[in-house]
Amino acid sequence: MKRYAIILCGGSGTRLWPLSRTLRPKQLLALNGEQTLLQQTASRLLAHVAATNLFTVTHEDHKFEVKGQLAEVAPEAVENVLAEPCSRNTLPAIAWAVNKINQQEPNAIIGVFASDHAIDNQQAFVDAWTTAEIAAKNDYLVLLGIKPHEPATGYGYIKPSQQLSYSGPLPVHQVAQFVEKPNVEKAAQFVHDGYLWNSGMFVFKASTFMGMLQQYQPEIAKQISKMTAENFAETYASFPNLSMDYGLAEKVEKIAVVPVDMAWSDLGSWDSIYQRHQKDADNNVMHGEVFAQDTTNSLLWSQTSLLATAGLDNIVVIQTADATLVCDRSRTEEIKTLVARVNAFKPELTEIHQTVYRPWGSYTVLEESVNFKIKRIVVNPGAKLSMQMHKLRAEHWVVVSGVATITNNEIEFTLNENQSTYISKTHRHRLENKGTEPLAIIEVQCGDYVGEDDIVRFDDTYGRATA
Amino acid sequence: MKRYAIILCGGSGTRLWPLSRTLRPKQLLALNGEQTLLQQTASRLLAHVAATNLFTVTHEDHKFEVKGQLAEVAPEAVENVLAEPCSRNTLPAIAWAVNKINQQEPNAIIGVFASDHAIDNQQAFVDAWTTAEIAAKNDYLVLLGIKPHEPATGYGYIKPSQQLSYSGPLPVHQVAQFVEKPNVEKAAQFVHDGYLWNSGMFVFKASTFMGMLQQYQPEIAKQISKMTAENFAETYASFPNLSMDYGLAEKVEKIAVVPVDMAWSDLGSWDSIYQRHQKDADNNVMHGEVFAQDTTNSLLWSQTSLLATAGLDNIVVIQTADATLVCDRSRTEEIKTLVARVNAFKPELTEIHQTVYRPWGSYTVLEESVNFKIKRIVVNPGAKLSMQMHKLRAEHWVVVSGVATITNNEIEFTLNENQSTYISKTHRHRLENKGTEPLAIIEVQCGDYVGEDDIVRFDDTYGRATA
Repeated sequence: MKRYAIILCGGSGTRLWPLSRTLRPKQLLALNGEQTLLQQTASRLLAHVAATNLFTVTHEDHKFEVKGQLAEVAPEAVENVLAEPCSRNTLPAIAWAVNKINQQEPNAIIGVFASDHAIDNQQAFVDAWTTAEIAAKNDYLVLLGIKPHEPATGYGYIKPSQQLSYSGPLPVHQVAQFVEKPNVEKAAQFVHDGYLWNSGMFVFKASTFMGMLQQYQPEIAKQISKMTAENFAETYASFPNLSMDYGLAEKVEKIAVVPVDMAWSDLGSWDSIYQRHQKDADNNVMHGEVFAQDTTNSLLWSQTSLLATAGLDNIVVIQTADATLVCDRSRTEEIKTLVARVNAFKPELTEIHQTVYRPWGSYTVLEESVNFKIKRIVVNPGAKLSMQMHKLRAEHWVVVSGVATITNNEIEFTLNENQSTYISKTHRHRLENKGTEPLAIIEVQCGDYVGEDDIVRFDDTYGRATA
Repeated sequence: MKRYAIILCGGSGTRLWPLSRTLRPKQLLALNGEQTLLQQTASRLLAHVAATNLFTVTHEDHKFEVKGQLAEVAPEAVENVLAEPCSRNTLPAIAWAVNKINQQEPNAIIGVFASDHAIDNQQAFVDAWTTAEIAAKNDYLVLLGIKPHEPATGYGYIKPSQQLSYSGPLPVHQVAQFVEKPNVEKAAQFVHDGYLWNSGMFVFKASTFMGMLQQYQPEIAKQISKMTAENFAETYASFPNLSMDYGLAEKVEKIAVVPVDMAWSDLGSWDSIYQRHQKDADNNVMHGEVFAQDTTNSLLWSQTSLLATAGLDNIVVIQTADATLVCDRSRTEEIKTLVARVNAFKPELTEIHQTVYRPWGSYTVLEESVNFKIKRIVVNPGAKLSMQMHKLRAEHWVVVSGVATITNNEIEFTLNENQSTYISKTHRHRLENKGTEPLAIIEVQCGDYVGEDDIVRFDDTYGRATA
């Protein structure tokens, strides 16, 4: 049996705003320990699958960051990162990855996993996966179903029916019915009746999946099979926005579920982040520079600058460089409309952070005005920015650590710490770090327009050249 | 009758942290409208006193900012700003200013006022002052006593006794007793019994005050009379830390009080700031970029970046560039110990803001690291920094608006927008704005040490030269 795994890394949730942003979704954040959720997911899977058989589907915008994060925990999985040119929900993403695996190995048994969940009981997780694989070998599409501890209204539910007669670490049942997110009364009834939470995690044989796709979504199956490097972006954009549940799982007959209790959470709200963390004596969870006085049952999280509280109970405070959320802890699932209002006011506050990660490193906007912008730019060892040109702004660069190799209108030279240079408007220029330590420069942009879109790229290591 | 007024502008309260800091106390902040509290105080007094007769006592550290603020509302009062070399509570400050006035005009009738109170009923205020002046002419030390609306525990109380027979807009009573801040039961009894809040505002004749000082604090009186430019700092430092109440008002026999209802507040807590402001439909007070969802009875104040709230009631959030306070609104008087903890952790978070006001303009620290620091420096038209030198850091300057006149090792030159220069370690240098628009530069400091105390001043317009 050839075992494969697919990590779905496409979420761009707003539920953990202001920490999560469109360009920095929750799977790329360290919300549940030192590693990011994506890294925790990869590490968890590597207990059961070879890194070379681990595929990751993400959005083009996140490709470099996903590769960078995987490089730290599963370097052999980096080459199997698939970047979607646009988001089309889970079914096209899974179909694309399965098709690739199927071409190598039609008998592959594939597990599909979210990149942004927490699972504390690793043994139970592996038991469930192993059990599911047994049914998958028998051409079932198998779901992992979470045994509920409370009548949650934020998940879809699965009604299991008769147990299948396979012998694995855990039982496996046929699925009687999928149920949409219920209200609290129905949820209580479901919990009582032994329904399971739909985790969105699947196990199946590559050939089984392709056959089901052929039967129920023949147009997607056809397009996938004809996809080439040339027509890829166009083909992908033509796919319908379709979830794995709605597009396939709810339609097929051979559908099964493995009930598992593995201390799972989808970390779908700040309250669920609070629930996962160790509490202090006052039942608070604190992160960063926080001083709490007479404060209880609260999540106090500061990415930057100091947070001081007094006389609070059951409050969530999330502080970032450019936005702070203060919210009752029982209301953290309701921030969606708030985030939409913020987005309408200043889209960048929900889309990016002041620090933006690029394939070559990162930049942080320190201050922005009408006619100037100040950035700290960090270039990783061995990395370089594209050869580029700006029509409307000049740039002053001061090296504050490391050694910069600079090209300015065909002339290449190096600058050390405490040296500076000037890039005129319209000059072709490039910044490179040939050293072994990170390079940091302070850039002061001056001009009538200092927007990010005033850039012409001539040559780019990362395939981003536009001219 | 020669009328004078003294504004006491020495407070360095922590009760409105993080907006108020040691170097930016509450009287210098715009907490109750467009003007700062000091400016509102000066404007209020000018309805009854000539600007040339308005004296302001402040700390040396705040001198330039106080003068700058007064210049906008009472330019003739700027030359009568008295700067204490150290803080010695209210009695030495008042005695110093009264002595100066007394030398000009022993029959001066002087009102003493706090710089950081709010008074909405201007007519009632002037009536009280006018009434107090009548008793002051008859050698009384006269207090303004606020008619209480609630059993506040944060003020001292005054028990009035028989009414004096002067005829003014308001009655004036002898004082029977001063009472320290009471507990809530006692406070309720005091309110019931017609006691008044001690506002700390006094009216008296210059010669009366000097006579009382001679009688009850003869050592202070003696030192004040012998004070010269040469011995000033030393003499001032030798004064006891003594309040006007404790050192004089509670001791003298001819002490009177004018009861007044003038919509007064000492703005001594964030809740009192909340109480003064107009509320929106949800009974919130909001300042800055704030989005509130299902939030009621709250004070939401952001100086920088965005603040979003959901599901809150009765909460105070004060957000500044480097520190945020989140507090139950009924507990805002208890932040003192919290601020003390913050001070022990990082003193600068309670002492300065990221923007620091200097006599020539201001600077804002945009980022600070071990070996570099980035500042935006704004120089007012016509102003210049001291000629100075740094032993351990070099500086890169980029002009982003205005025109800079720069001296670097005896050579003077100008830089326009989008031009830059480099100041080596140990070079004597100066930055000046000879233009009519503000000058803004970005400064990148590089060196093994980038602390503010690495400075040798050679020549300074503002008398700060140290070498």
